[in-house]
Amino acid sequence: LAPSSPPTRRGAAAGALPDLLPACNGEITTMSFLQDIVDILLQYVVKSFDRTTKVIDFHYPNELLQEYNWELADQPQTLEEILLNCRTTLKYAIKTGHPRYFNQLSTGLDMVGLAADWLTSAANTNMFTYEIAPVFVLLEYVTLRKMREMVGWPGGCGDGIFSPGGAISNMYAMLIARFKMFPEVKEKGMAAIPRLVAFTSEHSHFSVKKGAAALGIGTDSVILIRCDERGKMIPSDLERRILEAKQKGFVPFLVSATAGTTVYGAFDPLIAIADICKKYKIWMHVDGAWGGGLLMSRKHKWKLNGVERANSVTWNPHKMMGVPLQCSALLVREEGLMQSCNQMHASYLFQQDKHYDLSYDTGDKALQCGRHVDVFKLWLMWRAKGTTGFEAQIDKCLELAEYLYNKIKNREGYEMVFDGKPQHTNVCFWYIPPSLRSMEDNEERMSRLMKVAPVIKARMMEYGTTMVSYQPLGDKVNFFRMVISNPAATHQDIDFLIDEIERLGQDL
Amino acid sequence: LAPSSPPTRRGAAAGALPDLLPACNGEITTMSFLQDIVDILLQYVVKSFDRTTKVIDFHYPNELLQEYNWELADQPQTLEEILLNCRTTLKYAIKTGHPRYFNQLSTGLDMVGLAADWLTSAANTNMFTYEIAPVFVLLEYVTLRKMREMVGWPGGCGDGIFSPGGAISNMYAMLIARFKMFPEVKEKGMAAIPRLVAFTSEHSHFSVKKGAAALGIGTDSVILIRCDERGKMIPSDLERRILEAKQKGFVPFLVSATAGTTVYGAFDPLIAIADICKKYKIWMHVDGAWGGGLLMSRKHKWKLNGVERANSVTWNPHKMMGVPLQCSALLVREEGLMQSCNQMHASYLFQQDKHYDLSYDTGDKALQCGRHVDVFKLWLMWRAKGTTGFEAQIDKCLELAEYLYNKIKNREGYEMVFDGKPQHTNVCFWYIPPSLRSMEDNEERMSRLMKVAPVIKARMMEYGTTMVSYQPLGDKVNFFRMVISNPAATHQDIDFLIDEIERLGQDL
Repeated sequence: LAPSSPPTRRGAAAGALPDLLPACNGEITTMSFLQDIVDILLQYVVKSFDRTTKVIDFHYPNELLQEYNWELADQPQTLEEILLNCRTTLKYAIKTGHPRYFNQLSTGLDMVGLAADWLTSAANTNMFTYEIAPVFVLLEYVTLRKMREMVGWPGGCGDGIFSPGGAISNMYAMLIARFKMFPEVKEKGMAAIPRLVAFTSEHSHFSVKKGAAALGIGTDSVILIRCDERGKMIPSDLERRILEAKQKGFVPFLVSATAGTTVYGAFDPLIAIADICKKYKIWMHVDGAWGGGLLMSRKHKWKLNGVERANSVTWNPHKMMGVPLQCSALLVREEGLMQSCNQMHASYLFQQDKHYDLSYDTGDKALQCGRHVDVFKLWLMWRAKGTTGFEAQIDKCLELAEYLYNKIKNREGYEMVFDGKPQHTNVCFWYIPPSLRSMEDNEERMSRLMKVAPVIKARMMEYGTTMVSYQPLGDKVNFFRMVISNPAATHQDIDFLIDEIERLGQDL
Repeated sequence: LAPSSPPTRRGAAAGALPDLLPACNGEITTMSFLQDIVDILLQYVVKSFDRTTKVIDFHYPNELLQEYNWELADQPQTLEEILLNCRTTLKYAIKTGHPRYFNQLSTGLDMVGLAADWLTSAANTNMFTYEIAPVFVLLEYVTLRKMREMVGWPGGCGDGIFSPGGAISNMYAMLIARFKMFPEVKEKGMAAIPRLVAFTSEHSHFSVKKGAAALGIGTDSVILIRCDERGKMIPSDLERRILEAKQKGFVPFLVSATAGTTVYGAFDPLIAIADICKKYKIWMHVDGAWGGGLLMSRKHKWKLNGVERANSVTWNPHKMMGVPLQCSALLVREEGLMQSCNQMHASYLFQQDKHYDLSYDTGDKALQCGRHVDVFKLWLMWRAKGTTGFEAQIDKCLELAEYLYNKIKNREGYEMVFDGKPQHTNVCFWYIPPSLRSMEDNEERMSRLMKVAPVIKARMMEYGTTMVSYQPLGDKVNFFRMVISNPAATHQDIDFLIDEIERLGQDL
């Protein structure tokens, strides 16, 4: 059918709905609106990588609420107003692709990844069946198999899923581990099975506890294992705590080792942990949300030696591999377990009399029903870079972290939080302002040092020049945690960060 | 800093990494690559709305695997190859925006929604803190408050979150309801609390059971309440089963009523259910994933009367409101409960000594750590349409469903699965091929009728002309479930569907 009316600026094809803009056979208004948006976005992309632009134009929440009318109303706005909404939103957004944005584990803005995400939006489908996402289901199959190969499982065999983030991936691991040991839990709940306990290091990600709370296991049943001074789990403490739990009559069902802790970037000793898991027949999960990316690097992947012995692995390509948010994979060694654990056989989605191979209807292994297409970004970036391109990008970030470490380890005004070269791109340090440098190491100094990083950080945000994270950890007061995952960062950006910290902190 | 080298086709600014394409001060290659992608996408958008284009170019999985080389390799591909990958992916994608794609509850492709999703990708951030998502956090606040107003909670007070889909939103409700009754479950797990039971109708979404399995409650503890012939929960049966459960010593903690069931589009009687929940002090959840959109319509919102008495509501704007996938909200009447239930106080994200109002760091109320920005699409569409625009769009879809119902209810060759006008856009019917029309209603007819819908559906997909879902339900053999959520659909498209079913099914 040809369009029944000529295109007009008010979207006449939609009938009485102004600005609804259904694209009808190339309607001019629609195309020019989308092109206007793209022009705004391209400008933003260019600015994101421009070091003369601020990382952030910071406003306090109450100011930002007043800067613009953000409210929702009964009546439509014009397309011109919609474009203005977009420009305003971007004006106050953080430029997470900026080469001096170091605030999170996910930084950078990959152009192929961005293009892939735009395509994903236009394709606008769900992952539950081959029927409605044929290509994406196949690409998930291809990509997960490749990731399992990198983990070291023979022939890339096994199972897996892309989930909405590392916390959910870790929760899946806990869910599947529990089901593997006590499949009756699915029908009968926790009431029917013994008291379970899980083990993870004191430096592990909080999602292990969050998952235990959600799954009805309880945070008290997550036993935190001591770490060495570098933040690595101490295997002898793990074994001791397993024995202790068994003596109490609890059933150890999961060890969640970490490959790349959030703050220190530490890699737990996976081989020793695998030995213990084997000895006590416990599911071994590796949370490689942050460190998994190093599997792409021939130079650094030894840090994950032993990961091939895990039963499950979390790996977030949206972190160290620079894939746009979100892209997190859970990989499982045993095939079919996710399906048995989660399937509910909804007859309106997973009809058994379809005309194609039903093994491609993978949706019933998920906790979600609808599931966003997260794989395409990773797949297209992998095609564009090749494994060697990811490797070069990751090696470069690690080299930059070492550069930063070497620059500050003996520099006046810096103290390292732990000794030795960083294993990941995490570099943890205190900046000591001149006024504290000659003070004795006592309570007063601690309480003053505690306030240094927050003030410098607040000033960074107000100037908008750079952003880096800080936090306390255990008995250590606030320190900076520098991480580098943006391949656009250079040595000059590291130099800039150091200068900026000193400029903003020297009077404290 | 100015770019240090002139742009080249191989992305020289990235050093040794071919095709990495970091956008460096407007680098020509990057911009022209993104523009090439946009041109491909605009063409796809135009085609999606063109009725002379196929909804799907169907290939069986093994064929599709062989049609193209989808594998991941060590070496990078050229930009030309990347563009070809995108064109190929779209060639085999389902055109979910096509006016004759009726296969799922989420259909259509809204132009403002698409633009908003593209912006979200370029902004590439996470929802956990105001620090890194200031505008999006505020817009989530504004939008959730507005949605709570539409639910009918005074002043839009309450709490909520955008979650990765309705299944997770429903799981949140179950999690929070359990925590509200037994807060100790967070630390001590299910072992420390009595045996819980939840109630939902036999027509409810499978995610209620899936959630119960995951949360350690167990699917056996989800009691399915009988429905009337229209698929509505029968309140007297609910009360009977609650009493029965209490007598057994179980603790009823949740009733999950459905506003818009997946197959029949039925609305449970919320007022009667609210009375029962009040009487027995049980958390009332309303799964309005599909039906919530009707709250935008002055004509249809009475179908959700009583929703204002719920403790929590799931509402997926990515279904009836046509927001791109994913966009699902859980709304909670009591403020602060989500936070208490889920928070873990990660000190690397939720520092207590930040320089701004920490109540805007909303990430700790989530089960996820990183959380995709799902709100912007909805917010921008709401600005573009106004509430009245959503209303008109929804009214139109409901009118089309009634048109279909009126057309087929007395037409030869059709049997309705249930009597009466559709309450939502779900129209459920059997197509009876001529060969079955004069047959007695016996087992043979049933077993032949069972095969009719799958064959017609397979033919639809092979011709690529339209797509509509079918399924069995209880003792009813395979029937078509027609749903309309795409505002681009017209009366002619409904006529086309009927003709197509008859064309493809007359020889069966």
